[in-house]
Amino acid sequence: MLNKQVLLKSRPNGLPNENNWQFVESEVAELEANQLLVKVEYISLDPAMRGWMNEGKSYIEPVKLGEVMRAGTVGKVVKSTHKDIQVGDNVYGHCGVQEYAVVPAKSVHKVDPNIAPLERYLGVLGMPGMTGYFGLLNTGKPEAGETLVVSGAAGAVGSVVGQIAKLKGCRVVGIAGGPEKCDYLVHELGFDAAIDYKNQDVKSALKQACPKGIDIYFDNVGGEILDTVLTQIRMKARIVICGAISQYNNTTPVKGPANYLSLLVNRAKMEGIVVFDNAASYPQAAMEMAGWISQGKLKAKEHVVEGLENFPNALLMLFNGENKGKLVLKII
Amino acid sequence: MLNKQVLLKSRPNGLPNENNWQFVESEVAELEANQLLVKVEYISLDPAMRGWMNEGKSYIEPVKLGEVMRAGTVGKVVKSTHKDIQVGDNVYGHCGVQEYAVVPAKSVHKVDPNIAPLERYLGVLGMPGMTGYFGLLNTGKPEAGETLVVSGAAGAVGSVVGQIAKLKGCRVVGIAGGPEKCDYLVHELGFDAAIDYKNQDVKSALKQACPKGIDIYFDNVGGEILDTVLTQIRMKARIVICGAISQYNNTTPVKGPANYLSLLVNRAKMEGIVVFDNAASYPQAAMEMAGWISQGKLKAKEHVVEGLENFPNALLMLFNGENKGKLVLKII
Repeated sequence: MLNKQVLLKSRPNGLPNENNWQFVESEVAELEANQLLVKVEYISLDPAMRGWMNEGKSYIEPVKLGEVMRAGTVGKVVKSTHKDIQVGDNVYGHCGVQEYAVVPAKSVHKVDPNIAPLERYLGVLGMPGMTGYFGLLNTGKPEAGETLVVSGAAGAVGSVVGQIAKLKGCRVVGIAGGPEKCDYLVHELGFDAAIDYKNQDVKSALKQACPKGIDIYFDNVGGEILDTVLTQIRMKARIVICGAISQYNNTTPVKGPANYLSLLVNRAKMEGIVVFDNAASYPQAAMEMAGWISQGKLKAKEHVVEGLENFPNALLMLFNGENKGKLVLKII
Repeated sequence: MLNKQVLLKSRPNGLPNENNWQFVESEVAELEANQLLVKVEYISLDPAMRGWMNEGKSYIEPVKLGEVMRAGTVGKVVKSTHKDIQVGDNVYGHCGVQEYAVVPAKSVHKVDPNIAPLERYLGVLGMPGMTGYFGLLNTGKPEAGETLVVSGAAGAVGSVVGQIAKLKGCRVVGIAGGPEKCDYLVHELGFDAAIDYKNQDVKSALKQACPKGIDIYFDNVGGEILDTVLTQIRMKARIVICGAISQYNNTTPVKGPANYLSLLVNRAKMEGIVVFDNAASYPQAAMEMAGWISQGKLKAKEHVVEGLENFPNALLMLFNGENKGKLVLKII
């Protein structure tokens, strides 16, 4: 059986382009003991992928040149040599950007399409949801009455952060690009206010939306917005560093937060998070979030692009902010 | 009685200079109820003074133009209208850069010259000591076996931080300017290693001195050194932001830490501290530190400059790193 795959051919300088990818077809390997052959159905597109394309270790090893591009996926088992996973089971795993993957059975876990559509296991019920859940609750530590600001607010992580903060009684302000996303935040997700960084002055809009100042800032973007938020934090504020999508494609050095001394003035802290640290608690979090979803308290949206051949362009949608909701690639 | 005073005449742009100060003589006011007339004996010179000279509120109100420059002081009571403080008592307070001050009795506290020389109450037993003590123990949270790096290590705060970290069982590396200070850190204060940032490549020197990486960084300087340390922190590292003396006299914007995403990779945090938040616990800390001093476990050094007229130049010594130990001005 032939398998279409997307390999990392070269490392990008700035935004990834077509030359960084190689499309190949290869024969699917035979299974060894305790392995699965998975037909990939949805591939998760995440800002973190940009980091995996760089040389040098970050919180995880880089993808090697000539390797299948790493990606979180959901798919269906079509062959199994493991006693607990049967043909026809749906599984979440890191099967990569390809149609089929042979993986150790212990590297995946089953997901149930009766609880949620499969693609949702890449969003709210997957890594982005877990990132928002644990980053907000364990590091942001929201208290009722506090003001939370989240950037990348209409994205997979940001929308979860804002909605859970609302459930915890916070005033929630989202920063996103464009009126459509801002409208979505306020009118569909119930945010108290939204700031359109593409069309508004973020500094004055924040002042208006956060009259008491900012207690928690959940940062997905870095750059100018992080620096602006730092001028408006309150005493004992918590800044959760989840990502810095504005900086991932820099060809110049990362812009550090020049206003970081606001941390001193306000006895505030800035702390980095990586979702994998909470792996042991994923099931409990997924259960709680599934409950909120079924009660209509937590809404989810996926943005589906079809076709493995569209992977390179779909990835770019993340960086120019075209996606509305969790971006996934559907493999037909 | 005539009182010589140093007033803030204008706000500096960059390094303070002679034009920012006005020397005046004025008549000492009569005491009202519950006031003291204090003869100032030692004036504390601190990097924080530079911030107080700027317009705009920081963690404390700026000094107003035409006002006596704010300063921590120790001195002797020469008149009193308060029942608990007698003429002849020695007191610590914020009496400012002047020979005499009329202050509310409740704004000062007594200090005992039999326990330590008066100038030490501006150093190890004063604000710098408290800053190092609480910043390290409450925010740095040192554990035995961890590696701590402190910048401004030969200064009033840094030398306390490093010595207490040694008492807690850490490997301690100090960063200071010049071979004389580095020698002092290792051979007099017992640091494990010292890095001379003026003559060594800090990055490679840190790699050598901290082979396991850095668990705690106590930052007094900001700028390039902070950025370099960020490349060598360990998982769950704590960065205590106490000051940023390299940036206080900038005429260009503050340099933000471009490597701040290392916080994410390493699940680390960066937290600001202000000593005043621990005021209720000063007596307990002073007691513990006095104990360490008497046991020879905590060493202190003051750098004494004489004469009120030398205040402007003495202040500059802080910024070009000329002082060796806690810098104080003795009023003769």
